Amino acid sequence: MRWPFISRIIGILLIFMGLAMAVPLFCSFYYNETASQGIVHSILITMIAGLILMLLSKKYESDDYINQKEGMTVVALGWTVIGAFGALPFYFSPEFTNFTDAFFESVSGFTTTGSSVMINIESTTHSLLLWRSFIQWLGGMGIIVLSLAILPFLGVGGIQLYKAEVPSPVPDKLTPRLSDSAKILWVVYAGMTLVEIFFLLAGGMPPFESICYALTTLPTGGFSPHNGSVAHYDTAYFDYVIVVFMLLAGINFSLHYQMLRGKTLAFWKDTECRFFLGLTIVFSLIITWNIYGSVYDTFKDAFRHSIFQVSSIITTTGFATADYEKFPALSQVILFVCMFIGASAGSTGGGMKCARIIVCFKYCYRELFKLIHPRSISHIKINNTVIPDDVLRSIMGFLALYILLFFVSSTILASMGVDMMTALGAVASCIGNIGPGFGTVGPAENFAHLPAAGKWLLTLCMLLGRLEIYTVIILFIPEFWKR
Amino acid sequence: MRWPFISRIIGILLIFMGLAMAVPLFCSFYYNETASQGIVHSILITMIAGLILMLLSKKYESDDYINQKEGMTVVALGWTVIGAFGALPFYFSPEFTNFTDAFFESVSGFTTTGSSVMINIESTTHSLLLWRSFIQWLGGMGIIVLSLAILPFLGVGGIQLYKAEVPSPVPDKLTPRLSDSAKILWVVYAGMTLVEIFFLLAGGMPPFESICYALTTLPTGGFSPHNGSVAHYDTAYFDYVIVVFMLLAGINFSLHYQMLRGKTLAFWKDTECRFFLGLTIVFSLIITWNIYGSVYDTFKDAFRHSIFQVSSIITTTGFATADYEKFPALSQVILFVCMFIGASAGSTGGGMKCARIIVCFKYCYRELFKLIHPRSISHIKINNTVIPDDVLRSIMGFLALYILLFFVSSTILASMGVDMMTALGAVASCIGNIGPGFGTVGPAENFAHLPAAGKWLLTLCMLLGRLEIYTVIILFIPEFWKR
Repeated sequence: MRWPFISRIIGILLIFMGLAMAVPLFCSFYYNETASQGIVHSILITMIAGLILMLLSKKYESDDYINQKEGMTVVALGWTVIGAFGALPFYFSPEFTNFTDAFFESVSGFTTTGSSVMINIESTTHSLLLWRSFIQWLGGMGIIVLSLAILPFLGVGGIQLYKAEVPSPVPDKLTPRLSDSAKILWVVYAGMTLVEIFFLLAGGMPPFESICYALTTLPTGGFSPHNGSVAHYDTAYFDYVIVVFMLLAGINFSLHYQMLRGKTLAFWKDTECRFFLGLTIVFSLIITWNIYGSVYDTFKDAFRHSIFQVSSIITTTGFATADYEKFPALSQVILFVCMFIGASAGSTGGGMKCARIIVCFKYCYRELFKLIHPRSISHIKINNTVIPDDVLRSIMGFLALYILLFFVSSTILASMGVDMMTALGAVASCIGNIGPGFGTVGPAENFAHLPAAGKWLLTLCMLLGRLEIYTVIILFIPEFWKR
Repeated sequence: MRWPFISRIIGILLIFMGLAMAVPLFCSFYYNETASQGIVHSILITMIAGLILMLLSKKYESDDYINQKEGMTVVALGWTVIGAFGALPFYFSPEFTNFTDAFFESVSGFTTTGSSVMINIESTTHSLLLWRSFIQWLGGMGIIVLSLAILPFLGVGGIQLYKAEVPSPVPDKLTPRLSDSAKILWVVYAGMTLVEIFFLLAGGMPPFESICYALTTLPTGGFSPHNGSVAHYDTAYFDYVIVVFMLLAGINFSLHYQMLRGKTLAFWKDTECRFFLGLTIVFSLIITWNIYGSVYDTFKDAFRHSIFQVSSIITTTGFATADYEKFPALSQVILFVCMFIGASAGSTGGGMKCARIIVCFKYCYRELFKLIHPRSISHIKINNTVIPDDVLRSIMGFLALYILLFFVSSTILASMGVDMMTALGAVASCIGNIGPGFGTVGPAENFAHLPAAGKWLLTLCMLLGRLEIYTVIILFIPEFWKR
């Protein structure tokens, strides 16, 4: 492990983060808010820390390439460090009284979780609300991917960083050059954000709120500038615009690129996309049937709130237009299951990912098939491509680790005096990068009341979920640090 | 599929079941109870059905052997049919008003689940209570295994039946001849039952109750002749005697056989047994710490109730000396996790089984190890034996199916209007063959209030759990019925 090298990359990321803080700074100037002082402090601290890390480390040599171990270390440490420095604007604002809360809010932002400890969001400054939305937008497509797109010097060994930050089971290389792929992803992502802002403005949403919502929809983040989330408006138009963009954000971005290149059937031809959209529709219809009459009097309202909640949870966004804890049990269980399923691989969404669920189904079916035809040799395919055995093992290992982590973290959270349903719901929500959970952390409540140790645990869960477990957990394996 | 052949074996099992009903019949004579008429009817119906099935089928030819497909069909259908006819004594008694409840109680018995729909157990006849305990005892070590032990004619293809009924990941052949192995298992099992009866009698428990408790401890069943389960006595001696026998029942029976043959370190040398007992002790100590002071005033009481509840749930017995729903959240989450872990492979307990959990841990660790050393080739071992790749796949497939079934069944149960925690708890309990669940089916309540469709679903879950999923679910795969 070449620590100076790692420290240099993290230093660069920090300087980059300091520059990003200029966005809320300008916002505070625009609205003439007192918050600007705290943001200036944050920028200075972040920049200086970045410069120190860079200066301490050896000069970059262009023939150096990052190996897999270093790639994972950079990504896991980088995200933690960025989470910590990204917490400074929160920490310096009067709404936050301790660093635990600020770090929780910051990591919840970068990992696009969207769980919040802020109790009165409406009374917060515009600059802080914008920072809160902006870090979700940065984290959504990936900070490292962004660096790869705009910082060409990382290009040589960048694939290791890319693999560590986007460890999807079915990685698509859009173009032969990684930095080109990263650029395309970010351009598509930014373009869709602009389109959503346009549609929200067209419906009459104020410009600031439109920007905030678009910045947190595309990364499937879910932070909202209102205490009541999207329910604040209670307008069919906004609900459906956001549903559409949440679902688009939950689809593999390489399919969007294909669509833009004129392959109009790209969504339909992709197994995972069909599964993802199909499941969303089926679950929405079941919940519509379940809440029509009992919670909503009109079919229109039942369907609107049903598809919004399903899209919000399955894409792991976490916006709310209704308190699903007041829905009948069936709807709640379906939403709980959605928390685990998650969005598509290669999207900005979290959870286990539809591709892995499909593989898991096929894996189970193959075992049953083998019992019927013991001598058969059958491969598991997705989109007519055979999945190699090592990828298959990695996927099953991932799913097992996901469930194990879910149970272990819930147990630890419960040991802090949190009730069972809240513990299960909060952990499922944070590992899946969703936002609201169940029990006392449902869509109508927030995470402020949890004990400090619980917040640290959940922060770790968010990082584990965002970096898809392996990249983070491997740092805790002694074998990793040998030699 | 040779249906006449299958029908013949099931016919024999039914006649055997009719003979088993003589036990409660004698009991009803002894206590001079009116229940005898219902039991006589049950015996007649069961015997006649068995004879018809036998006569309809072709004559048995000694060179016939059962193939794997037929083996699975016989076992899955056999257990369902036996569950149905075993329900007759319940159905003919005044406590039961419909067949759904009787079938639920019967399958809950045979599968050693122990979930009950009987509301006032103390007012029931001795003969029905004995039948209820006796079917758990028969189901515990396996009806087919018993048939193999005492009906030599099944010997030729018996291995297929044995594999379908005892599909543990690490099967041990005690002796070269299957019928000898089956005999040994049943002799050890019956012997341990007698020893438990002796210890319970020695502590002053009435003979009838001693027999009932022993008949339901060794199969990790959990039916009790008292509404209050073991809490009825609230005596440290009985609690600890039952804890010891629950734990013995949760250990692989081939280890008991080794112990009897003088290998005194057999328990210690077995990885799974160490894991199982170690986990029980660790969880008991954590729960003791958690409930000492808050629920119980003395350490002695806290430890006694803690180890009893942990042993009862992890071995999937389901006796209760306390209402764990009144324990703090940590204890509840641990017990919920125990529901999934289950006892040892080759024991009479249910759940996922410790051996599979160990393999799953090692599987995950291997994936992490592979990330660190990508070119390494590492095998997963238990007790210094390499687990072949196909067994590994089957284990991971089993665990995935278990979790999938848990979520699917919980969703269906919730769709019947059952609240979320009850749905999750009831399904976890029934797939794991435990007994009590969470929510409104906790240790202080029972399953009577669930809707009829929910009872049928849970009955299916019990069968799926007892026959370890594959044997049952395969009958629902169209491919199985082809040609």
